Amino acid sequence: MPRYALKIEYDGRPFCGWQRQRDLPSVQGAIETALARLEPDVPGIAAAGRTDTGVHATGQVAHCDTARDWDAFRLMEALNHHLKPRPVAILACAQVTDDFHARFSARERRYTFRLLSRRPPPALKAGFVWHVRHALDLRAMQAGATHLLGQHDFTTFRASQCQAHSPFKTLDGLDIEARDVPGGQEYSFHLRARSFLHNQVRSIVGTLERVGAGAWAPEDVKTALEARDRTACGPVSPPDGLCLTGVSYPTDPFV
Amino acid sequence: MPRYALKIEYDGRPFCGWQRQRDLPSVQGAIETALARLEPDVPGIAAAGRTDTGVHATGQVAHCDTARDWDAFRLMEALNHHLKPRPVAILACAQVTDDFHARFSARERRYTFRLLSRRPPPALKAGFVWHVRHALDLRAMQAGATHLLGQHDFTTFRASQCQAHSPFKTLDGLDIEARDVPGGQEYSFHLRARSFLHNQVRSIVGTLERVGAGAWAPEDVKTALEARDRTACGPVSPPDGLCLTGVSYPTDPFV
Repeated sequence: MPRYALKIEYDGRPFCGWQRQRDLPSVQGAIETALARLEPDVPGIAAAGRTDTGVHATGQVAHCDTARDWDAFRLMEALNHHLKPRPVAILACAQVTDDFHARFSARERRYTFRLLSRRPPPALKAGFVWHVRHALDLRAMQAGATHLLGQHDFTTFRASQCQAHSPFKTLDGLDIEARDVPGGQEYSFHLRARSFLHNQVRSIVGTLERVGAGAWAPEDVKTALEARDRTACGPVSPPDGLCLTGVSYPTDPFV
Repeated sequence: MPRYALKIEYDGRPFCGWQRQRDLPSVQGAIETALARLEPDVPGIAAAGRTDTGVHATGQVAHCDTARDWDAFRLMEALNHHLKPRPVAILACAQVTDDFHARFSARERRYTFRLLSRRPPPALKAGFVWHVRHALDLRAMQAGATHLLGQHDFTTFRASQCQAHSPFKTLDGLDIEARDVPGGQEYSFHLRARSFLHNQVRSIVGTLERVGAGAWAPEDVKTALEARDRTACGPVSPPDGLCLTGVSYPTDPFV
């Protein structure tokens, strides 16, 4: 069977997350339903990141196998046609070799989390930012973030239901930038790693927000990490601001 | 009565536009309803730009009169409280003198129009961009735009129901920028003028899109302008990509 890699954008709000669940709308289910209109007997699709309820993507990657030999551009167009009106779009499609696996071949995942700091609520970006009403200290958050870079036991920043075999992960990047927006500031947290634990990004952002608010000192992040204890974590942020922006492979399937 | 200037952000999708209409949800109606919870007997509010159905704002300005003397920050907070859950937020509030009028004192209005050019539909920015499936030529659009700068009779770019006394307006700025986004390009048209005719921005963007697509030559914009004839205009763009980003006054009331 020919195999195709798909680059996918979606608005996570109407979905229970990436993964197909019985009786709940999922992104995987939406794409598999569209694919079944074209290829009735193909197996399910696999994705690089199983995003949670309300988490968005501009660069999710999945792969599918088909019975027919498709022109990749036509497969993208046909899938987008059948995905309407759901807020899921296939941004790119490319034929790949049989040994390509969207999840297991991935070398790096990139997430961006957006945090809006201002008194008024977000009227335009509701669902796409985490809104806090107080000011945040960028330098303090950046100082706190440095303690998380590199390889660590991230038990503190891991959901209790996380299914990963090991709590050891290597965080390769955690950059925070601020920009002025009408009425306040928007902070973007850019994280990259080969893979993440369940809720790791939201646990990290929720903790760094406490540092930005002045409730925690930057060094408290190190203490929390070294505790290897879920209860030492700051509050987990809501999913609203989180977006899977990209996945890298040994060879980029889309160029 | 003390007078206050309000800076307002809103998502235009659920509204029939700025202006209050009987039996239809409007932005003006939403704010007046919130204000009536605080000040039962105040007159209606006036805004700098009467945006159409589906048009957004990050920098609309309106003014209101109140019976009580409010601390401006508290008035903003109270209005935002009563505006929930509607997607309208007061970003700033400042007491102004009686001769301040949000509409008649305005010296400049600024609009940004966003146009997404790519094959796949917008999954994340639906309602906030005009989506076209073909490629656009930035240089050609910029060349076409130069013909519209300065003072002209803009009859060609004016809605038939426009109520302005004169079709003469001075377009002080029309900058177009492009940036790569997942799957394609996003074009931002930034327009500024003392005031605009009804549908002027959408008529201009719809015409420049034809230039970008290659259906019109840049000089055809000049011919259309000089025709002073509504039927010489390109297709009017949809409202989705349009946002009122700012209004300037002789003295900025919010600093």
